[in-house]
Amino acid sequence: MSSFVLRGGTLLTVDGDRRVVQGDLLVEDGRIAQLGVVTPPPGAKIIDVDGCVVMPGFVQAHTHLCQTLCRGSADDLPLLAWLKERVWPYEASLDEVAMRSSARLAITELLLSGTTSILDMGTVHETDALADELAASGLRATFGKAMMDTGEGVPARLRETTASSLAESDALAARWTGRADDRLRYAYAPRFVLSCTEALLREVSARVASGARLHTHASEQLAECELVRELRGQDNISYFDSLGLVGDRSALAHCVHPTAAERTLLARSGAHVVHCPSSNLKLGSGIAPIPEMLADGVNVALGADGAPCNNNLDGFLELRLCALLHKHRAGTHALPAAQALELATMGGARAIGRAHEVGSLELGKRADVIVVDLVSPHVVPSPDPTSAVVYAAQSRDVRHVFVDGRHLVDGGVLTETTGLERARVVADAMTQARRIAAHR
Amino acid sequence: MSSFVLRGGTLLTVDGDRRVVQGDLLVEDGRIAQLGVVTPPPGAKIIDVDGCVVMPGFVQAHTHLCQTLCRGSADDLPLLAWLKERVWPYEASLDEVAMRSSARLAITELLLSGTTSILDMGTVHETDALADELAASGLRATFGKAMMDTGEGVPARLRETTASSLAESDALAARWTGRADDRLRYAYAPRFVLSCTEALLREVSARVASGARLHTHASEQLAECELVRELRGQDNISYFDSLGLVGDRSALAHCVHPTAAERTLLARSGAHVVHCPSSNLKLGSGIAPIPEMLADGVNVALGADGAPCNNNLDGFLELRLCALLHKHRAGTHALPAAQALELATMGGARAIGRAHEVGSLELGKRADVIVVDLVSPHVVPSPDPTSAVVYAAQSRDVRHVFVDGRHLVDGGVLTETTGLERARVVADAMTQARRIAAHR
Repeated sequence: MSSFVLRGGTLLTVDGDRRVVQGDLLVEDGRIAQLGVVTPPPGAKIIDVDGCVVMPGFVQAHTHLCQTLCRGSADDLPLLAWLKERVWPYEASLDEVAMRSSARLAITELLLSGTTSILDMGTVHETDALADELAASGLRATFGKAMMDTGEGVPARLRETTASSLAESDALAARWTGRADDRLRYAYAPRFVLSCTEALLREVSARVASGARLHTHASEQLAECELVRELRGQDNISYFDSLGLVGDRSALAHCVHPTAAERTLLARSGAHVVHCPSSNLKLGSGIAPIPEMLADGVNVALGADGAPCNNNLDGFLELRLCALLHKHRAGTHALPAAQALELATMGGARAIGRAHEVGSLELGKRADVIVVDLVSPHVVPSPDPTSAVVYAAQSRDVRHVFVDGRHLVDGGVLTETTGLERARVVADAMTQARRIAAHR
Repeated sequence: MSSFVLRGGTLLTVDGDRRVVQGDLLVEDGRIAQLGVVTPPPGAKIIDVDGCVVMPGFVQAHTHLCQTLCRGSADDLPLLAWLKERVWPYEASLDEVAMRSSARLAITELLLSGTTSILDMGTVHETDALADELAASGLRATFGKAMMDTGEGVPARLRETTASSLAESDALAARWTGRADDRLRYAYAPRFVLSCTEALLREVSARVASGARLHTHASEQLAECELVRELRGQDNISYFDSLGLVGDRSALAHCVHPTAAERTLLARSGAHVVHCPSSNLKLGSGIAPIPEMLADGVNVALGADGAPCNNNLDGFLELRLCALLHKHRAGTHALPAAQALELATMGGARAIGRAHEVGSLELGKRADVIVVDLVSPHVVPSPDPTSAVVYAAQSRDVRHVFVDGRHLVDGGVLTETTGLERARVVADAMTQARRIAAHR
């Protein structure tokens, strides 16, 4: 792979010292080779990024690429009705063609808005198609099929046996882990307590104990928490913990309503909380106690969740909302720009177990890098580039996106490397959304 | 003025029946002449808007164009410290050149993101320069100089006598009302209780009783409410009411903390509440009881407030946040897309007293119209165009902006009519921001 230099930008490193460096970034063989003062090797391509910020791409640690064709079809409902009346019937209607279309639409939006890594939960079926689209696109992804072997109101097509759910998950993990130049990884994804038997969760726990990663939903909405207590006799996160599912390989989306005991447990365990502020507001879930959990020492990541509950998949929107949403409860000092940016990048990298590889601009790390133009009427003046990125910049300001040093977005346009053509992806998504809606 | 047709779009009328119409819009002499099925007069220009929504432009009923050069310089502070430590010293440093630059930057951002009308509060001085920039740009604006004849921590340059504050306001109102083809109007703008003597407020009240409009801040933050009670012996909105300042010509920004009695009063009086969700979160003010006030029958408008407390001036961001922010308290049915869109358009039109002229697409109304492209990867599928505009579309999707039928944004670019050149406005703003910061 060739080398290139991003010349003349402001580097937001998001390293341990949160260094902001004026200068250049050299990428060689897909990794960050020099920072600041750079000696370009002969033949290195020079990309001028004057007036721009160079920063790690967003690592969104909770997405549902399979749901993108359901955007705009599930507004204004609380979680359980939203799932039963809209999202599950939609997911049941997905065939391979629609799954590919949904994934391509999501990946197009994600790349164009500066996301370089995701932790994704699929639906029960068509996961190979999802993985294949991820592999082709150049995005970095840890993904898993949704596991659902029980539950009320689950459409027939989403109901699995415990054995088949595990067997399919095991096969997917074996088939895809390390694929696409190691960009793809697997995370077991029991959907949430209410759609998983205890037997299933125990089997997943055994795999996590052996090194597998976990991605699930926890304590998203009060009605769900109440049902979990009724059915399993414990609070949601405590229940997961009793099964060995709360540890440093666990990414728990939402955690809007942890008890005091559960907050202690989260901090002690090294588990990762994925904050999804737009989704939590839109589904009426509440405001997660993020400043409190951060003070406890919990690692927090950000995620857009899915298109039917957001309705974008935009790292900038989640970052800005995260930085704004907690100040009226926790004080205006809560979630300052630099900390919010860390959640959106390093927080996600930790949640997917790749903090040593991505999430910051540091020597030797993989070059998952974005370039954001700050010279825009909605951003200037920008005396503090971190503030500008968090509070003022928008996804339309993304100029370049690299994953493993591969140029995926160039001048705001998807490159051929992605295999994605914006207009075609959009037209195809509209067609497929109409087609499968007609069968629901 | 010539006539033109917007052909083949989806019209979100925001009329009394919230009609959504597939078809064309004919504009003649700056007014909406036909809707739906249109017979274009000979020579009418045809603009193809296939795949787009045609809707009223945003009416933002609380802005501070004078503050734009302070963007990014006042993060993470609560209201009173934010004013005293950052915003007032900044405003005191504004000279005519910087005021013009600040206004031009704001107008550029506002027009490009689909705002066609504002209710603006200036600073104490340089208001003619602000008005002159507004007149030249083509934006519709009701504006007023900030009135400040008392208060703690107010820089010398912002302190006026009661008499001079009134005399200057009266002169500005006389000089600018009806100017620029009647796009400009005046609203008296006593800043907030803590910077106005009771004598000043009584004089303003006399003018409002005679037909003048009022624009002020009320009950934004608890610390402010407490000080008002200490100093004036009443709750903030009740105090304004005791002076005759709460009526149907009053626009009260924020109202985050109204008492039960004050909510009743707001509803009975016909006063207009301007909700500024980003600003209220960023300054830690709280979440205004908007669904409750709407249920009481209060008219609610939206506003971005100023760049140092947002940090954008983006109608789409405020619209989306308004639609999301209240559901976790008031239920997922609260602020559905159509109602949120009404706040952002007709709500603002009512707050500036121009509901008969702008804020919706209706025959005979002034053609303050925007065209928003819905065929984008972050918006499709969009089975419900109102949902798409509120929850998914962004300011980058704005293709055309018209005020009084004048074409101000064409294909996402400012036209010559505005006298504004994006790159030049941005470069000038950066220069001026640095210059005046050096003198603070």
